[in-house]
Amino acid sequence: MKVSNDQSGAVPMRMSELSRRSGVSVTTIKYYLREGLLPAGRRLSATQAGYDEDHLRRLRLIRALTGVRGLPVSAARDVLGALAEHAGDTHSLLGLTLGSIRLAEESADDSPEPAEVDSLIQELGWDVHKSAPARSALAETLTSLRTLGAPLDRRALLSYAHLAERTAVLDLDQLDGIEDPLEVAERALLLTVLLEPALLALRRLAQENESAQRHAES
Amino acid sequence: MKVSNDQSGAVPMRMSELSRRSGVSVTTIKYYLREGLLPAGRRLSATQAGYDEDHLRRLRLIRALTGVRGLPVSAARDVLGALAEHAGDTHSLLGLTLGSIRLAEESADDSPEPAEVDSLIQELGWDVHKSAPARSALAETLTSLRTLGAPLDRRALLSYAHLAERTAVLDLDQLDGIEDPLEVAERALLLTVLLEPALLALRRLAQENESAQRHAES
Repeated sequence: MKVSNDQSGAVPMRMSELSRRSGVSVTTIKYYLREGLLPAGRRLSATQAGYDEDHLRRLRLIRALTGVRGLPVSAARDVLGALAEHAGDTHSLLGLTLGSIRLAEESADDSPEPAEVDSLIQELGWDVHKSAPARSALAETLTSLRTLGAPLDRRALLSYAHLAERTAVLDLDQLDGIEDPLEVAERALLLTVLLEPALLALRRLAQENESAQRHAES
Repeated sequence: MKVSNDQSGAVPMRMSELSRRSGVSVTTIKYYLREGLLPAGRRLSATQAGYDEDHLRRLRLIRALTGVRGLPVSAARDVLGALAEHAGDTHSLLGLTLGSIRLAEESADDSPEPAEVDSLIQELGWDVHKSAPARSALAETLTSLRTLGAPLDRRALLSYAHLAERTAVLDLDQLDGIEDPLEVAERALLLTVLLEPALLALRRLAQENESAQRHAES
């Protein structure tokens, strides 16, 4: 194996090795480089660049965001950008992360009813920004359910919100005891975004169990 | 407006009226017809078909599944198929609905660890099928978090699962008091699939609030 002449720091990886270790194809790595998701490697020669452990870690994060979480590449880039800019301030990072990710496909012809969500948040006493995109995502879903003749009543909505409060406490508890600010930020991002499919999966399994229990009783 | 000569039942809608009332373009309606998401209209003449309120309701449901929930058309078709086949049996419908929807993009090169999920479900005492796709979705996320150096410990996972249990009780409570079996089935589907973005939105709002509280304290 050819070793780079540039000996500053660890021996850089060639793209083929980065591909092998990350499990991401060379074609896809080149795409991420073009799209700005992955920072350029260190120039080794006119035709060769070198990559390091940061590139590997970043590739794993991109794979997690676009694969498991199913985010479009543009949204993943926004998340990674927010992570880099606000590494030291978990609260800002959380806000920006939530701000940069769409919760669902846009449905432009729906007419959300933010008033209902505003009054819910007021009743809960939650301290959240007026512009949080989760507000409109919530309003859109409530409108859809109503349009389809299956509206969610206020009492049920409040009960779901109280369970969300307890979930959020658990979420933020996961950040306790981590010292390094960058690690706190990255963990916050992972918990916010990556845990979503796991929470939905747990809900579905719990529904199946609950349905089985009620079915057996009747 | 030209009225059909066929007078069996209500006056059928022409496609233009179906488009206007549903807010879905004629092009998109034709696409749903081709893809089998929407049943064919009643033949009025060699070139005209008539549509009824069932078509309108079905179109709204397709819009909700593909728009708000962001499901691919093929997954929406599976969901609608399951709904039609198992209208009378809520428990089977739930099982099939959960079975027909992927929770996240496939990430074929991940190696899920079903043993961890199996033992979790055993510890919880949940009655769920061995083949429930939510199992592998959960395993994939846990593997991703571990790969990224942010594993979720067993105690936290159990806490999230207990919150999911309470969410599922709320979910199934929403079906109480509905008599019509088809309505029970449709409501179950809507709650399972459509409520997901709302629950994730509530979690993000609750996180922002919880983060603001902890930030203010320190």
